[in-house]
Amino acid sequence: MNLDFTKSDGLLPAIVQDAQSRRVLMVGFMNEDAWRKTLESGNVTFYSRSRNKLWMKGESSGHVLRVKDISTDCDNDTLLIQVESRGPGVCHNGYESCFYRTLREGEWVEAEQRTYDPAAVYGADK
Amino acid sequence: MNLDFTKSDGLLPAIVQDAQSRRVLMVGFMNEDAWRKTLESGNVTFYSRSRNKLWMKGESSGHVLRVKDISTDCDNDTLLIQVESRGPGVCHNGYESCFYRTLREGEWVEAEQRTYDPAAVYGADK
Repeated sequence: MNLDFTKSDGLLPAIVQDAQSRRVLMVGFMNEDAWRKTLESGNVTFYSRSRNKLWMKGESSGHVLRVKDISTDCDNDTLLIQVESRGPGVCHNGYESCFYRTLREGEWVEAEQRTYDPAAVYGADK
Repeated sequence: MNLDFTKSDGLLPAIVQDAQSRRVLMVGFMNEDAWRKTLESGNVTFYSRSRNKLWMKGESSGHVLRVKDISTDCDNDTLLIQVESRGPGVCHNGYESCFYRTLREGEWVEAEQRTYDPAAVYGADK
């Protein structure tokens, strides 16, 4: 498949885009195991740098990301994954997209409402 | 502005998305200088890791990317930049998007036509 996992400690950034709305939902990192797991399962699976292990998106929330289409870029070092999102949002802060803050006159502004209550999904520590 | 430039040697990934079509065009990296330059000029400016210097996208091709909107993610370590693309494509291989290859039955397939001749724009060495 010729993906180039050599550039960033064996990790590739994977952009997750909603296949229908075309909204960019999040960016995660995959190592070769996460990539294989994503292909085998059809569920987007990342490598968690903080927890140092594979992490199927939605494994605790149930908000899995079903793979619809996958592209790579001209350098084979970035993935673009079109998904169907099985949940109200991907962001652990309770938003549809992790990109919920927009620059307005030099300040980051939360430009949208939460789509779910993160404490109800992830517990009170979030 | 509180962007977190500490995680990857002072660089943040910046996803470039066409503001109209919502197509993801490319991913580049910005250091703090490139970020400042992007804000000041309104033209997307990256830091080139291979050439070790600032690189305004389009400086040789004329295919500049005009900033329309900027978001950041929940960790403040990734940028999503909506642009108006002033050219037939962003990819130095001659395509509208760097993500011109799609996975089909385990193989990367070029799913689209070139939108310009890269040799005419960048010279014969491309």
